[in-house]
Amino acid sequence: MKDQIQIKVTKRSPAYWRVTFDHPPLNIFRPEMLPQVNEIITALETDEQVKVVVFDSAVEGFFLIHLDFLARLDDLAHLPPGPTGLHPWPEMLGRLSRAPVVSIASIRGRATGMGSELALACDMRFASREKAILSQFEVGAGLVPGGGPMAQLTRLMGRGRALEVILSANDIPGDLAELYGYVNRSLPDADLDGFVDALATRIASFDKRTLLDIRRLVNVAGLPSDIEIESGWNACVASMARPATQERIKELIGRGFCKPGEAEDRLGEFVGQHGR
Amino acid sequence: MKDQIQIKVTKRSPAYWRVTFDHPPLNIFRPEMLPQVNEIITALETDEQVKVVVFDSAVEGFFLIHLDFLARLDDLAHLPPGPTGLHPWPEMLGRLSRAPVVSIASIRGRATGMGSELALACDMRFASREKAILSQFEVGAGLVPGGGPMAQLTRLMGRGRALEVILSANDIPGDLAELYGYVNRSLPDADLDGFVDALATRIASFDKRTLLDIRRLVNVAGLPSDIEIESGWNACVASMARPATQERIKELIGRGFCKPGEAEDRLGEFVGQHGR
Amino acid sequence: MKDQIQIKVTKRSPAYWRVTFDHPPLNIFRPEMLPQVNEIITALETDEQVKVVVFDSAVEGFFLIHLDFLARLDDLAHLPPGPTGLHPWPEMLGRLSRAPVVSIASIRGRATGMGSELALACDMRFASREKAILSQFEVGAGLVPGGGPMAQLTRLMGRGRALEVILSANDIPGDLAELYGYVNRSLPDADLDGFVDALATRIASFDKRTLLDIRRLVNVAGLPSDIEIESGWNACVASMARPATQERIKELIGRGFCKPGEAEDRLGEFVGQHGR
Repeated sequence: MKDQIQIKVTKRSPAYWRVTFDHPPLNIFRPEMLPQVNEIITALETDEQVKVVVFDSAVEGFFLIHLDFLARLDDLAHLPPGPTGLHPWPEMLGRLSRAPVVSIASIRGRATGMGSELALACDMRFASREKAILSQFEVGAGLVPGGGPMAQLTRLMGRGRALEVILSANDIPGDLAELYGYVNRSLPDADLDGFVDALATRIASFDKRTLLDIRRLVNVAGLPSDIEIESGWNACVASMARPATQERIKELIGRGFCKPGEAEDRLGEFVGQHGR
Repeated sequence: MKDQIQIKVTKRSPAYWRVTFDHPPLNIFRPEMLPQVNEIITALETDEQVKVVVFDSAVEGFFLIHLDFLARLDDLAHLPPGPTGLHPWPEMLGRLSRAPVVSIASIRGRATGMGSELALACDMRFASREKAILSQFEVGAGLVPGGGPMAQLTRLMGRGRALEVILSANDIPGDLAELYGYVNRSLPDADLDGFVDALATRIASFDKRTLLDIRRLVNVAGLPSDIEIESGWNACVASMARPATQERIKELIGRGFCKPGEAEDRLGEFVGQHGR
Repeated sequence: MKDQIQIKVTKRSPAYWRVTFDHPPLNIFRPEMLPQVNEIITALETDEQVKVVVFDSAVEGFFLIHLDFLARLDDLAHLPPGPTGLHPWPEMLGRLSRAPVVSIASIRGRATGMGSELALACDMRFASREKAILSQFEVGAGLVPGGGPMAQLTRLMGRGRALEVILSANDIPGDLAELYGYVNRSLPDADLDGFVDALATRIASFDKRTLLDIRRLVNVAGLPSDIEIESGWNACVASMARPATQERIKELIGRGFCKPGEAEDRLGEFVGQHGR
């Protein structure tokens, strides 16, 4: 399992790559996916020709979701920190936001937890109006999210809506995600692929140096500092260690969490039923 | 009058409280309400079980409005500063934004001046589509608003829309408030209570420590500093002292300001008719 | 040509001025317009009675567009820096955002490049739903925009949407501009003039000192620092000097750029066809 490739890279052209999550049935994030994503980010950082990358999913109903709590979490927890001193997950997200390539998340199906965080680290997000659902479900499991949504969502949609999204742990469908600025736009499902492809192709026709200078300047006002991200990560780790959280996760797993079925198909509803 | 309770606290459960403004006919803010609100904030800060508080109104047509300029304003102006050095009004708002409880404003009727500022200090705001009207009317009375809307609205909706709201002093109905991000969402009036109650109940089912860690991290990017709030308060006090302002307020009072009737029912229109 | 007046100032009242761009057929920005705009800003800064200024256009189809690349650009490039040390173009924009007058852009027709940047430096922006098109087309010509849209758009609409607007170089029509917060609101074309006139008249009825104190406080959170703007300007100048950019501009000019016709009428589409 460990070496199985769950993420496919396709080069539509030297300047325009696609990264497709293909880990059925849930596109759940397994610890061994992190090195795979890291390798892709490194490729994007070092390739001289690539200008645009689109992240999407090959799995019906799921863009990319949360950590697989049924996996050996030690594989993830005990990873050494990356060069910035951050844990490799938030470090990878920060690298993506600053990598010399324009990144677009094309969201169809559920993007929650790490899936939402990866989308937020991208430069732009477009969602299927009918089929996209975004969320940060973590508080429903007693957890503080670790990949920076407190920092990212507050900058995208303001304090009030960011607090609602994260503290409610609710499912956010495409149109509400557009209203709140969680995504750039939601599009009719039939139009999403064509729209994103045209946009990526267009951006890939522009000058790489100019694209990156612009992105660097937008990042000045648009990206949180590493310290703010680190503070969120530390709160996540601390929340994971609390007995109340461990018990909550155990209860969710007993009811079907991390397995195909109602729990993951209606995660917002599911985590709201704790203790009932 | 001074000791009359104008704000009711109801505990739906140990974890979920309601605070209801009930000072008919206008829910106008009288100086003696400030100690009452402060006492409630202290209770919220010290109670170990409360996780969510909803602010609403029992008065038809008014959520909570501005200071009663017919009252003895000295009672308010000469209050000693709170522990942070701020005047007790902005200090109370800052305490609310940081108190160990998630706060939701459920807005039906007019929320202007201090009513709008209290809603902005809450973590989230939901509005009746048909019956909510938000505004910062102050410039219509020659005043700089004192409770931080320059800082809060700019962060919620950007500079252009914040300037429009505050410099126009216009009424902002529910749908426009939603478009601008003044509120999280506007809902059909018939749905507002059920929606807010379900959200509050849901959040109250989550872990308090985790909720508060998340809120603390959102506050990093989402809340203004005390110095920025203090600067706004000082500009408010200075504007109050200007003869032009005193004259403007006197003229408004002569036309019915702070009394039931057209002036308060159509405050946006009313303050736009100065000197006509 | 050099001394021809292309910008008209009309005083609707001592407190309410209009500034109208009237340089048919394109309202293209010629180097000699900069001193004219500077003179108007100086007049707005020194007049004691003016409280509101509205910027609009007398040219069908164009609010104000980009630099005329067919002009002697040396006239613009070799201007000495202004008092803050910035190049006179970004310096003028910063002066407008801080000038002792409330500024409103009333946008009908195309506002791209410097036209979009001027609108973004205003306090508020209102757009014709049918006839306004905003954009930052620059990356389509290999250029980093110089007048601060990376800083301004990121603060108005968040990182994701700002990156889409600037990196796509696409036309943004009125309704999308409203959704993204690029403008305060888009209004039916027939209502735009009446709406803006009523708002300007209303604001002009308020106290100047109070208006400016409020604006100063909104600017604290809403405006970028001079250093951030300077960094963007330097990236613009550097991009201009790159051979790839010079070649791209030459190619665009060969296909009709900066002249009346399809190129400017459909600029978004036009710059997306490079190399096809």
